[in-house]
Amino acid sequence: MLLLEIASLVNGKLIGDGSVEITSVSTIEGAKIGDLVFVLEDKFLADALKSGASAFILPESSSAHGRSAVLVKNPRLALSKILKQFQPAAEIPPGIHRSAEVHPSARIGKNVSIGPFVYIGPEAEIGDGTIIYPSVTLYRKVKIGQRCVIHSGARIGVDGYGFVPTGEGLLKIPQIGGVVIGDDVEIFANVCVARGTLGDTKIGSGTKIDNLTHVAHNCKFGKNCAITGLVGFAGSVTFEDNVAVGGQAGFAGHLTVGKNTTVMAKAGVTKDIPPNSVVSGFPALDHKKDFEIQAALRRLPETMKKIKQK
Amino acid sequence: MLLLEIASLVNGKLIGDGSVEITSVSTIEGAKIGDLVFVLEDKFLADALKSGASAFILPESSSAHGRSAVLVKNPRLALSKILKQFQPAAEIPPGIHRSAEVHPSARIGKNVSIGPFVYIGPEAEIGDGTIIYPSVTLYRKVKIGQRCVIHSGARIGVDGYGFVPTGEGLLKIPQIGGVVIGDDVEIFANVCVARGTLGDTKIGSGTKIDNLTHVAHNCKFGKNCAITGLVGFAGSVTFEDNVAVGGQAGFAGHLTVGKNTTVMAKAGVTKDIPPNSVVSGFPALDHKKDFEIQAALRRLPETMKKIKQK
Amino acid sequence: MLLLEIASLVNGKLIGDGSVEITSVSTIEGAKIGDLVFVLEDKFLADALKSGASAFILPESSSAHGRSAVLVKNPRLALSKILKQFQPAAEIPPGIHRSAEVHPSARIGKNVSIGPFVYIGPEAEIGDGTIIYPSVTLYRKVKIGQRCVIHSGARIGVDGYGFVPTGEGLLKIPQIGGVVIGDDVEIFANVCVARGTLGDTKIGSGTKIDNLTHVAHNCKFGKNCAITGLVGFAGSVTFEDNVAVGGQAGFAGHLTVGKNTTVMAKAGVTKDIPPNSVVSGFPALDHKKDFEIQAALRRLPETMKKIKQK
Repeated sequence: MLLLEIASLVNGKLIGDGSVEITSVSTIEGAKIGDLVFVLEDKFLADALKSGASAFILPESSSAHGRSAVLVKNPRLALSKILKQFQPAAEIPPGIHRSAEVHPSARIGKNVSIGPFVYIGPEAEIGDGTIIYPSVTLYRKVKIGQRCVIHSGARIGVDGYGFVPTGEGLLKIPQIGGVVIGDDVEIFANVCVARGTLGDTKIGSGTKIDNLTHVAHNCKFGKNCAITGLVGFAGSVTFEDNVAVGGQAGFAGHLTVGKNTTVMAKAGVTKDIPPNSVVSGFPALDHKKDFEIQAALRRLPETMKKIKQK
Repeated sequence: MLLLEIASLVNGKLIGDGSVEITSVSTIEGAKIGDLVFVLEDKFLADALKSGASAFILPESSSAHGRSAVLVKNPRLALSKILKQFQPAAEIPPGIHRSAEVHPSARIGKNVSIGPFVYIGPEAEIGDGTIIYPSVTLYRKVKIGQRCVIHSGARIGVDGYGFVPTGEGLLKIPQIGGVVIGDDVEIFANVCVARGTLGDTKIGSGTKIDNLTHVAHNCKFGKNCAITGLVGFAGSVTFEDNVAVGGQAGFAGHLTVGKNTTVMAKAGVTKDIPPNSVVSGFPALDHKKDFEIQAALRRLPETMKKIKQK
Repeated sequence: MLLLEIASLVNGKLIGDGSVEITSVSTIEGAKIGDLVFVLEDKFLADALKSGASAFILPESSSAHGRSAVLVKNPRLALSKILKQFQPAAEIPPGIHRSAEVHPSARIGKNVSIGPFVYIGPEAEIGDGTIIYPSVTLYRKVKIGQRCVIHSGARIGVDGYGFVPTGEGLLKIPQIGGVVIGDDVEIFANVCVARGTLGDTKIGSGTKIDNLTHVAHNCKFGKNCAITGLVGFAGSVTFEDNVAVGGQAGFAGHLTVGKNTTVMAKAGVTKDIPPNSVVSGFPALDHKKDFEIQAALRRLPETMKKIKQK
């Protein structure tokens, strides 16, 4: 692609030579002739300009110091659009791989890509344009929307963890609900999503769940939630839209997290959280309050010495 | 099923019309004619009775306010028994799926269900009535008892993490022990259970281990332990019977947790715990003590201000 | 093997009868005639000598009290060498299992063992002598060195978690980098390693990563790092050589951990850590400092009572 084509693709302001040919996109360290380098933050600008790259994508406030560049409002958005041009063909082509095991009662949409060693159980439904990477398990009655991506080793529709303690041990509560996943959802590798006990576990459209996260039975997530890796849920957690969760956070059962809330990494949420909150710590509190407590805690040994001296 | 048959199945007290026909079990929200709705706690009673359900299972102290219902001592126990009547046929039928890879030296019991893409290694043993969902790996010498359920993606018998630091790096300690799992054990999706270095890793009968938990080499768990998701173990942890563990808890190596103990979510257990304890926090303490500390911690910023003023 | 052969193998000092025949290696509890028992620490010596074992490996300072034994400087190193003699043949033989799915453009070295249901994508490279257990996924462009071991269910090269928030939801940043893994790396079961967004995620030679750990895009690990289970990384974390990490620890993005550092279990690392550190807690601090804080915290409720009384 020519740099001027790239400028047009991202609605950016072209600086310098628009006829520069871009053959790939590179990190700053590895950049060579033909490469385009992204400067996502100004602090990387000096290093980037020293590299051998042919051109740069820069935040609109930056100077290109005589190099060829495209200035954009949102470099990350530009990165998304431009990488789409340079990504290789889909690893899993449309169609059902001959080794996949798809139950005859499952309904598979158009342009669905089903990789090797995928198991799709009875009454499952897969929407148009969805990609399912190798070794995924979709148990019975799992419904997946359009344009979803399910990464390798995800287990969707496993039984919820429901047992009744009895004199003879833990008696299983049969899990007869399903899982309903919206459109444009991405579920990463080895994630587990349990089916509902009764009723469905639900994951709203546009939500993305990173590797090794555990979603329990009857959780209900809104739209465009961003849930990172190794996060744990007890049963029946409700997320409104646009909730963001950091790595290794955990959620007690039967609570609701309001829309636009950020739950920071390693937090342990034990009760309802109102919309537009930022919470951290365990038990999770308003982040400012938690930060104050953590700061006080770090001064505690010294404070205790002073108290003794009094 | 008729409501009077359900009352008889759960030894409950029939209220109202026993000839009501029940065709499925529903959550309160989705309930319609033909549905049975469970009220597990009194606080849900009012909403339940407003629903369109045909009948209800209620705690024995409740009033049905003129609706048809069955009163029971333990609604969860009733839930287990009744859902068993309404669950669909087994997803994985008895027999070995043609795509499964079972070593000729493995011994497979009667009525065992082995799903697609399951690998069963040399000298493995699978007890009668066990169900193995798709894409499970049972490494060499793994022994599983009767009526167990092994969910998709579980890895049982992977090498323990044992290395000796040397001048040339981390030298592997070969792992030659096995894994022995009792009867009626349920292991959920993507759980990993490492083999013993020497001797066996053991999981007692009736124990249930939820998704994405990591059981290290030479752990020995008693009977009817309830271990939830994303829990981590270092090597040689011993659990006596009936230990319950919350999500994302972790255990240092070579310690013993006494029977009937509850380890709360996210706890980090660093030493032996006596029987009948409830522990939380990291390092895990008696929960009352830990609660007191956490309460004091939340008042710390304020307390520090007061100290300064003195 | 005769005990004198074992003494020679480990360069140990033979005590007692070198002609004792050793047929297997056992734990203390199960030891019987023909067994060799290891005493890794002196506190286990008395119990070991009471067992029915035929001979012992002891730390060089120990007394064998009249039993046949080999005294060694480093019993764990001896354990590694001796177990190598007693371990069974490889579970996955060299060659590509007929059920594996290997892309024609992948390059497979000599003496590589590829188990059942393994998927190897386009342009992947596998070095000589590497073992890949069942149901592993190696996505496109993953490069693995020589003599590596990849355990069952590992997912290497899954997309990094990269999205841009937009008015229409989370827009995916295509992930076009790769994963480069050195020699003698061992990756345990169900571990996930994300590909780089641009450039590669790198795991240095000799590094070992235990079950269910999540390595994010563009992480760069040095040589001989020891990373245990359920550890989580955000993107672009750099480890110098010989970093050791305890279970369930987590790392914020774009930070560097210096060589020879130990990060203790459940720590949450939020900023750069200098070489030769020992850190714990969240946010992770120098372990001595953190220990002091934790000790003060446990005395806090009592301290507060005293303050009130003043």
